[in-house]
Amino acid sequence: MPNYWWVNHKRTFKQEISSGYLWSPKTEAGGSRSQFYDNMRLTSPDDWVVSYADTAISYVGRIAGFCVTAPKPAEFGQAGTNWSVEGWRVPTEWVKLNRPVYPRSIIEQLVPLLPKKYSPFNVRTARGNQKAYLAAISEGVFDLVLREGGVARKALESLVRLAGASSVDQIEDEIELEIKRNRSLTETEKDQLIKARRGQGSYRKNVIEVESSCRVTGIFNPNLLIASHMRPWRSCATPDERLDGYNGLLLSPHIDFLFDRGFISFDDQGHLLISSRLAQADAAKLGLLNCGAPTMKPFLPEQLPYIRYHRSNVFMS
Amino acid sequence: MPNYWWVNHKRTFKQEISSGYLWSPKTEAGGSRSQFYDNMRLTSPDDWVVSYADTAISYVGRIAGFCVTAPKPAEFGQAGTNWSVEGWRVPTEWVKLNRPVYPRSIIEQLVPLLPKKYSPFNVRTARGNQKAYLAAISEGVFDLVLREGGVARKALESLVRLAGASSVDQIEDEIELEIKRNRSLTETEKDQLIKARRGQGSYRKNVIEVESSCRVTGIFNPNLLIASHMRPWRSCATPDERLDGYNGLLLSPHIDFLFDRGFISFDDQGHLLISSRLAQADAAKLGLLNCGAPTMKPFLPEQLPYIRYHRSNVFMS
Repeated sequence: MPNYWWVNHKRTFKQEISSGYLWSPKTEAGGSRSQFYDNMRLTSPDDWVVSYADTAISYVGRIAGFCVTAPKPAEFGQAGTNWSVEGWRVPTEWVKLNRPVYPRSIIEQLVPLLPKKYSPFNVRTARGNQKAYLAAISEGVFDLVLREGGVARKALESLVRLAGASSVDQIEDEIELEIKRNRSLTETEKDQLIKARRGQGSYRKNVIEVESSCRVTGIFNPNLLIASHMRPWRSCATPDERLDGYNGLLLSPHIDFLFDRGFISFDDQGHLLISSRLAQADAAKLGLLNCGAPTMKPFLPEQLPYIRYHRSNVFMS
Repeated sequence: MPNYWWVNHKRTFKQEISSGYLWSPKTEAGGSRSQFYDNMRLTSPDDWVVSYADTAISYVGRIAGFCVTAPKPAEFGQAGTNWSVEGWRVPTEWVKLNRPVYPRSIIEQLVPLLPKKYSPFNVRTARGNQKAYLAAISEGVFDLVLREGGVARKALESLVRLAGASSVDQIEDEIELEIKRNRSLTETEKDQLIKARRGQGSYRKNVIEVESSCRVTGIFNPNLLIASHMRPWRSCATPDERLDGYNGLLLSPHIDFLFDRGFISFDDQGHLLISSRLAQADAAKLGLLNCGAPTMKPFLPEQLPYIRYHRSNVFMS
C-alpha cells in the first residue's frame, strides 16, 4: 500500500520539480531532529506526494526510488545557503495538474482530512506550516487534490513515467565534473578519484589491503567481488575519504547492491543487519537468512566511523 | 596457474600498448575461425603475455580481466580497415622491458621452447608468423624473454599495476560520447540510449514488459532487479537493439554480474548454464547450485537471437 505525502516547497520549488526530486537537510539548522526531515527516509517507491508552493498545489508526484544521502544540489544556488551541505534526496516524478488547487479555497473539505499532529497546512493562517517540509497525509487529501485538480487517478498511473534509480548517477555525474574541473588536483589524482566511484583503481587496491573476502558470502575470488564504499562516494567529505581503504568493504555483487541501497548494514561487531524494507522472502532468495556469517569479524577502529555513517545515513532500519 | 601468451602486434601496436589491451577480430576476413583469435577467449586474469612487434619484444604484459566482446577501437583509424567492426578485447597492463629482445638473435635458445603447433614465430624466416595474432607459449619462453630483457620476475609482479574491470567502462564511455555527438538523433533518443547503458529508462520499461522476475532467484520485486542486456549495450548493431525489451533479462544483482561477465548463460529452453571458469565453491556460495530454476521458462522467438548471441560471444563455456 502506498503512503501519501505533502511537501511544502519554498525557494527551491522550480529546481525540485524540473529535475525530479525532493531534497531536505537532515536536521534543523541548530542540529536538532525534525519529523518533517525524518519523513524523507520513510518514503518508498510508488508513494504519492502533493506539491504545495506559493499558495497553490500545482503538481503531484510519484516517489521513484528510496531516499538517499546526497549533497545539496548545486542548482539551489543562493536559495539554499542556510542549509547544511548534506541532506536527504528522494527521486520523484512530477505531473502537472490540469488546474492549480488552492487549499485556502477548499479549506472546509480539507480540515477534516488533515492530520492533527505534524500537519503540513496551518488551518488558521491558511498557509503551509512554516517548519513542515514533508508531512504524511491521508489518501483522502490526495484524492481531494486530484479531484480539484481535474486529474483522474487512473490517468495518473499511466502519465507518471517509470521510476529510475538513475538519480544517484545524476548526482555523481555532477561531482565527477567538479573533480575534472578542479585545478588543485593532478591528472592522476583526478583519475583515481573518478575510478573510485566505480570501486576501481587505487581505491580498490586500498580496500583489498584491509578486507580480503565478502563478509556475507565468504567469497575470496577478487573477480567476483566489488569494492563498496561505506560512506558513499558522493557523500565523502574529502578526496582522501573517497580513496581510503578503511572506507570500503569487498562484497559479492548482490551484497554490494543491498549495502549500497541501505537494505543491509553491519553492527560494530560485524553482525549482518537486515532492513525491515527488505521482505523476508526476498532476503531468503538472496541467501541472507542462512548464510551463518562465515567471515564475521569486528570492524577495525579505522573502519568504525565509516560503518557508523552507513548505519545512520544509508541503512534503512 | 597462469598461462603464457605471445602476441604479434602489427599496425595497432602503439594503440594496444598505450591504452592497455589486446584486440582481435573474431574470425578471419572470410569468416573462418582461427585458433589465434579463439585464444583471446582462453586468456584469464593474471596470465602473462609477451608483445612482439617490428622484429623485437619490447613489452611484457599481464592480463587484467577476462576477454569481452567489443567494437573495434576507434583509435585504430586506418590501421584496422580490413577488420570486422566487432572483435575480442582483453584488458592488459603492459611493462616496458629494460632492453628490447630480438628473437632472431636468440633463436637457438628459443627454438626448443616454442610450440610445434600454432607457433607465434616462424623459425625459418625468423619473423612472427603471419597469421598468428595470439599464441600459447611455455613459461620457458616467458622466462627467457624476461632474462634477455633484463627484468626480474619478482620486480615485475610489483611493477604491474592492479587489474581493473574498467576496460568495459572505457569502451562504453567512448560509445556514449559518439551518441551525444550524433546529429541524427533527437535529445530524447540520446537520453534513452544512454540510460539503457545502465539498464534504466525506457529500456528497463521495455524489458519489464517481457520478463517479470529473475530467472535464477525468482525475485519479483523490481527494486531488487537489474535490466541486463543479452547482447551487450556496447555490441548492439543498431540503436533499436539497445532499447529492445526482448534484448533483456530482469536479474538479481549477482546474477546480472555473472551474466554480464559470461560466468553464466541460459540455453534456449531457459536452463541455467555455468561456466567452467566459475569455481564450484563460488557458484555454491552465490546460490547457483540448489536454486532449482524456480522460474525456468523457454525463451520467446524474439529473444532467441539475443540469448544465442550471449552464449556465443559473452558466455565463457
